[in-house]
Amino acid sequence: MALIVQKYGGTSVGSVERIREVAKRVAAYQRQGHRIVVVVSAMAGETNRLLDLARQVARRPSERESDALVASGEQVSAALLALALQDLGLKAASFLGHQVRIATDSAFGRARIQSIDKHRLLATLADGTVAVVAGFQGVDRDNNITTLGRGGSDTTGVALAAALGADVCEIFTDVDGVYTGDPRIVPHARKLGRVSYDEMLELASLGAKVLQIRAVEFAKRYRVPVHVRSSFGDEPGTMVIEEDKPMENVLVSGVAHDRDQAKITLLRVPDRPGLAAKVFGPIAAAGIVVDMIIQNASADGITDLTFTVPRGDFQKALSMVRGDEGGLGVQGIATDTKVAKVSIVGLGMRSHAGVAARMFEVLAGEGINIQMISTSEIKISVVVDEKYTELAVRALHDAFIPSRPAESRRPSAQESR
Amino acid sequence: MALIVQKYGGTSVGSVERIREVAKRVAAYQRQGHRIVVVVSAMAGETNRLLDLARQVARRPSERESDALVASGEQVSAALLALALQDLGLKAASFLGHQVRIATDSAFGRARIQSIDKHRLLATLADGTVAVVAGFQGVDRDNNITTLGRGGSDTTGVALAAALGADVCEIFTDVDGVYTGDPRIVPHARKLGRVSYDEMLELASLGAKVLQIRAVEFAKRYRVPVHVRSSFGDEPGTMVIEEDKPMENVLVSGVAHDRDQAKITLLRVPDRPGLAAKVFGPIAAAGIVVDMIIQNASADGITDLTFTVPRGDFQKALSMVRGDEGGLGVQGIATDTKVAKVSIVGLGMRSHAGVAARMFEVLAGEGINIQMISTSEIKISVVVDEKYTELAVRALHDAFIPSRPAESRRPSAQESR
Repeated sequence: MALIVQKYGGTSVGSVERIREVAKRVAAYQRQGHRIVVVVSAMAGETNRLLDLARQVARRPSERESDALVASGEQVSAALLALALQDLGLKAASFLGHQVRIATDSAFGRARIQSIDKHRLLATLADGTVAVVAGFQGVDRDNNITTLGRGGSDTTGVALAAALGADVCEIFTDVDGVYTGDPRIVPHARKLGRVSYDEMLELASLGAKVLQIRAVEFAKRYRVPVHVRSSFGDEPGTMVIEEDKPMENVLVSGVAHDRDQAKITLLRVPDRPGLAAKVFGPIAAAGIVVDMIIQNASADGITDLTFTVPRGDFQKALSMVRGDEGGLGVQGIATDTKVAKVSIVGLGMRSHAGVAARMFEVLAGEGINIQMISTSEIKISVVVDEKYTELAVRALHDAFIPSRPAESRRPSAQESR
Repeated sequence: MALIVQKYGGTSVGSVERIREVAKRVAAYQRQGHRIVVVVSAMAGETNRLLDLARQVARRPSERESDALVASGEQVSAALLALALQDLGLKAASFLGHQVRIATDSAFGRARIQSIDKHRLLATLADGTVAVVAGFQGVDRDNNITTLGRGGSDTTGVALAAALGADVCEIFTDVDGVYTGDPRIVPHARKLGRVSYDEMLELASLGAKVLQIRAVEFAKRYRVPVHVRSSFGDEPGTMVIEEDKPMENVLVSGVAHDRDQAKITLLRVPDRPGLAAKVFGPIAAAGIVVDMIIQNASADGITDLTFTVPRGDFQKALSMVRGDEGGLGVQGIATDTKVAKVSIVGLGMRSHAGVAARMFEVLAGEGINIQMISTSEIKISVVVDEKYTELAVRALHDAFIPSRPAESRRPSAQESR
């Protein structure tokens, strides 16, 4: 008998019918003798409906009240799922952040979990009751309601699994696992049976949006096995686990891409200490996440500085550097909002030289110009013209990913104990 | 500068536009320097929408989860009103039952407030912030969410006013005060400028549904002046206050009626000790509120026992007595679901004899047969055939209520300090 945390996303609890389906799935687990904690998101569309109401009453809704408002969405789905479980004859009770209690800092809208009191949940589980916990929310020191940001229910699930010492955290979603590439671009992309936390971190941040990145960080820190799988079937998905041995014995686990990229180049700026701080300090203060930064070595004390930002922040970032052209000593600004980032990710890169060179060869062979390059221990990313995205992904997938699974192990919740 | 608690019902916050109107009203008070606590109900229709969802996932929704579910409705309206106030430039913060904190017993769905911690709200008010409190809800000792029953936001408002030592609790609703009779039946019914707690208790329980009866009990116990008024205008409504002097110098303050009545008569039952307990014990245990009970004095040891229940509980109550006819020694059961209760209420009755006699004369003059009679110190109620309801109300209003106001004082929030 295992202690299992299951998280169901907004689509999985998007209607009364879907909630009843989830209840049946939970009941099946419970009949096997497992202790179950279920974490739910708000019903699909509900968070946006509430935020829309907020924008109708206030031009700039404050974060504290917005959090209290949207947290009601998970309250509704948690209570409904508990009711549906009771209707199947199970004992079930719903819990909110303040009841568990899930303590966070006071960063409304993007709060971080600081601690979780496991005692009430463990007492609840002890008598066979299924605990249904509202995801995405906690309370700060003053009992104000906080939310963890979009996708925060993943983090709630993993954090609860860590606090309770659960055997596995199952993330039920509308995709059935982590793929070696986007199946819409690479039809023969295959589902990974297992992937390491580090690979998942790189894949998640690169656009393979099956699991919130902070949830993966949490899982890695507390070594929580995470099973990403579909709520629409019983097939095993992808296990995200600690790297314990050469996994699947392959160089590259996946090819990721991200079209949400815009590029800004400051032309011919004086290459002196403090320049980067002067450019990126205000941009960071405005909450804009800069992804890649490239500065060429300069011979004449004059350099070009290029960086990428999400497209939604492009105009804001541009106006910030434009407003300070004199102060920065910039002699011109070039921009490109039609770029994409393509990355290969794999633990195998650590011990294999020449992966980058081969990547560049593959792209050159397709006539694709590389605009920017960024590397980490287990990832190589390039920025290319957006129109080459599909071509680059397919070519890299063909070059690096074996056409057949290197192993056919299919992990399941039972195995992971 | 006063400390004012204002409660707005579901219709008053029924839309984004209405919420913005409420915000403007609150802002006007705040500009006068008053400290304001606002209690809100869920947006009109929301509680029923949520309960409907509950019934779709569970045949018999449990009370704990139903409470957690519907409490989200007030969470939404409280956050939205706080946002609307902030949009007008005010400082505002919303609070839920667990944040205030409003401690109740664990009677889910009909919880009673046990204590209110005033410190957080007073600290909030001290710096000019408007506190918006979600009505209708509290938390029990284990932090479970409880609700106070339909209309419970009135109770929240009055209880907060009592705990904070507020100068007045203003109940904003979709009627503009307490009338001497139902204006749909008595077109010349007039609005009462003031009414005592005791009269209001009798009027409320008799169907003049402007204020929840438990809210009046709370107001009476803690001597909270309550001002019932319309949220659609600025006219003063009705002050519900302690009886301090002969009020308005009239015998009868109002004529109330209640069509939600059904009558059950147990025919020729043995008149022996313990009969009433045997009949009404199980009915009370089933949560059915019996209103009037009449038992005729018996000469031969055999009596008829008649009682009334709300029509919604009629079948249930009937099946309970039917099931035990043998045990009770009943020789027959007569029923009538087409009856109504008509009552006259007034403090003046205490010191005036002959009011009842005159009431019976008035009804006899209209050819209306009286089926049951029940009296209290300040009220006389009769049960009549439902078809005579309007006729009885009009005749009694004409006979007992002066056609012009005995006084024209118009109390306001300011006066009540």
